[in-house]
Amino acid sequence: MTAVEVRIREVGPRDGLQAEAPVPVEDRVALIQGLAAAGLRTIEAVSFVSEKAVPAMAGAAEVLAAVGPLEGVTVFALVPNVRGAQAAQAAGIDHVTVTVSASAAYNEKNVRMTIDESVAEVAAIRDLLGPEPWVEAVVSCAFGSPYEGDITPKDVAGLGAQLSHAGASALTYADTTGMATPRRIGDLVAVTGPRIGLHLHETRGTAMVNAYAALDLGIRDFDTSVGGLGGSPFAAGAGGNLATEDFVHLLDDMGLSTGVDLERLLAVSETLAGLIGHPVPSKVAAAGPRSRLAG
Amino acid sequence: MTAVEVRIREVGPRDGLQAEAPVPVEDRVALIQGLAAAGLRTIEAVSFVSEKAVPAMAGAAEVLAAVGPLEGVTVFALVPNVRGAQAAQAAGIDHVTVTVSASAAYNEKNVRMTIDESVAEVAAIRDLLGPEPWVEAVVSCAFGSPYEGDITPKDVAGLGAQLSHAGASALTYADTTGMATPRRIGDLVAVTGPRIGLHLHETRGTAMVNAYAALDLGIRDFDTSVGGLGGSPFAAGAGGNLATEDFVHLLDDMGLSTGVDLERLLAVSETLAGLIGHPVPSKVAAAGPRSRLAG
Repeated sequence: MTAVEVRIREVGPRDGLQAEAPVPVEDRVALIQGLAAAGLRTIEAVSFVSEKAVPAMAGAAEVLAAVGPLEGVTVFALVPNVRGAQAAQAAGIDHVTVTVSASAAYNEKNVRMTIDESVAEVAAIRDLLGPEPWVEAVVSCAFGSPYEGDITPKDVAGLGAQLSHAGASALTYADTTGMATPRRIGDLVAVTGPRIGLHLHETRGTAMVNAYAALDLGIRDFDTSVGGLGGSPFAAGAGGNLATEDFVHLLDDMGLSTGVDLERLLAVSETLAGLIGHPVPSKVAAAGPRSRLAG
Repeated sequence: MTAVEVRIREVGPRDGLQAEAPVPVEDRVALIQGLAAAGLRTIEAVSFVSEKAVPAMAGAAEVLAAVGPLEGVTVFALVPNVRGAQAAQAAGIDHVTVTVSASAAYNEKNVRMTIDESVAEVAAIRDLLGPEPWVEAVVSCAFGSPYEGDITPKDVAGLGAQLSHAGASALTYADTTGMATPRRIGDLVAVTGPRIGLHLHETRGTAMVNAYAALDLGIRDFDTSVGGLGGSPFAAGAGGNLATEDFVHLLDDMGLSTGVDLERLLAVSETLAGLIGHPVPSKVAAAGPRSRLAG
């Protein structure tokens, strides 16, 4: 087995599907199993949020029960608060994601809490879960906010430090609204160092170039979404998450291993497009890999 | 006036519009004038091709006559052969583009000539025009062919050398079908050196990351298309040319000057979307620049 050189956390079943019309539980289960079979080793599978607020994420516990244990695969659940963490714990999950925004205005809109209240919630989640489970803290709007504009790397990294102190196991910085650029990633990494995850969006056409620049800075952990689904409901059509297949296609060409079988992943992506009833944004899904010659 | 650090050859009025339903001459004229007013210093404005084969490019001479002289702007015309070069010459053009494919099969489909015949055509165009006019030779399928697969950088650069010998003033290497990657651009530049132009496509989501990698290799000349229009008719919806506004947005953030005013360019792009009757692929056109905050 080749060592994985770039670690991908696949967020399609959660971040991707949450913006779509609800997909039946059995299809979500098959999607997660398909992604695992394609070689994804870390999958954010569900979200324990209000079913009223996010109907597409209803049935998280049923999805997890039906998926069952996947050998060698780490399954994450997003939790917005202690209540979500309790539900995740009851469902047997020991890897949770909690998002806190570096933008006060965005955090207020997203979870109706101040940033300090969100940090306290992370501490409460750690208290609830005990020392063992993994708590991934995602700092959203890490490269700018549509409300406040730029937030200094020092302030963004400062929030990260607070979250670590509150009990986060590791930090991912998210370009929630597509405001990151290679230069700005460099500015943040100059403060945080490269042992961070990145969650990148295609809103301004920069997801891939940002990932490429981040690789050059030594970052090795990336959230991606099969098909490139996801993204802000406030910018429909403007681009979702970095597409897993597009990133794997690039990494394969760079000789960097991910453990993912691109052809199998493309088959999953094609099934996914059928489930959601429209083409996925991924370019490689549309055009096929460069190795696929004209018939 | 700040020195331009990255030179953009805007190909939207030609490469972009040729794949669309025909746009009236007066609108094409206004588009070219708008691009010049936004700061584009080099514009491929028309193509002297068969009006039957490419109806969207009909009326090249009328477009040029109506545009008139644009101070400080270099206007290019694409010519497929000597006959096209004669028409360009008659219209007062002294900068022509000629495309020759590194893929024999693609060249045959595109211009019904062997590669050697196309090289001889470039020599004949140089003979016709005399020593002064600029002949930009574009080597298409420079990073792979959908028919033959990979073509070695040595062979691609070898064709470039033949074209220089035949009278080309400079060389642009085109990723016609979106098969370039940062690594493959590096492999070509290792043979050609960085004094080349690049013409990049978004087919597999790599236009921007390839441009970024090329900048790092010292390349400073890029073809781009306003709105990201263009691309192969064989891969509809899979991505056109590198979008001028997306690239300028990135370069602005990197502190690299192009002479282009992004806000004025976005206004041109918006008008263009109206002309063609559908949204342009550019992400920055859809989302706005990162500096534009929520209202």
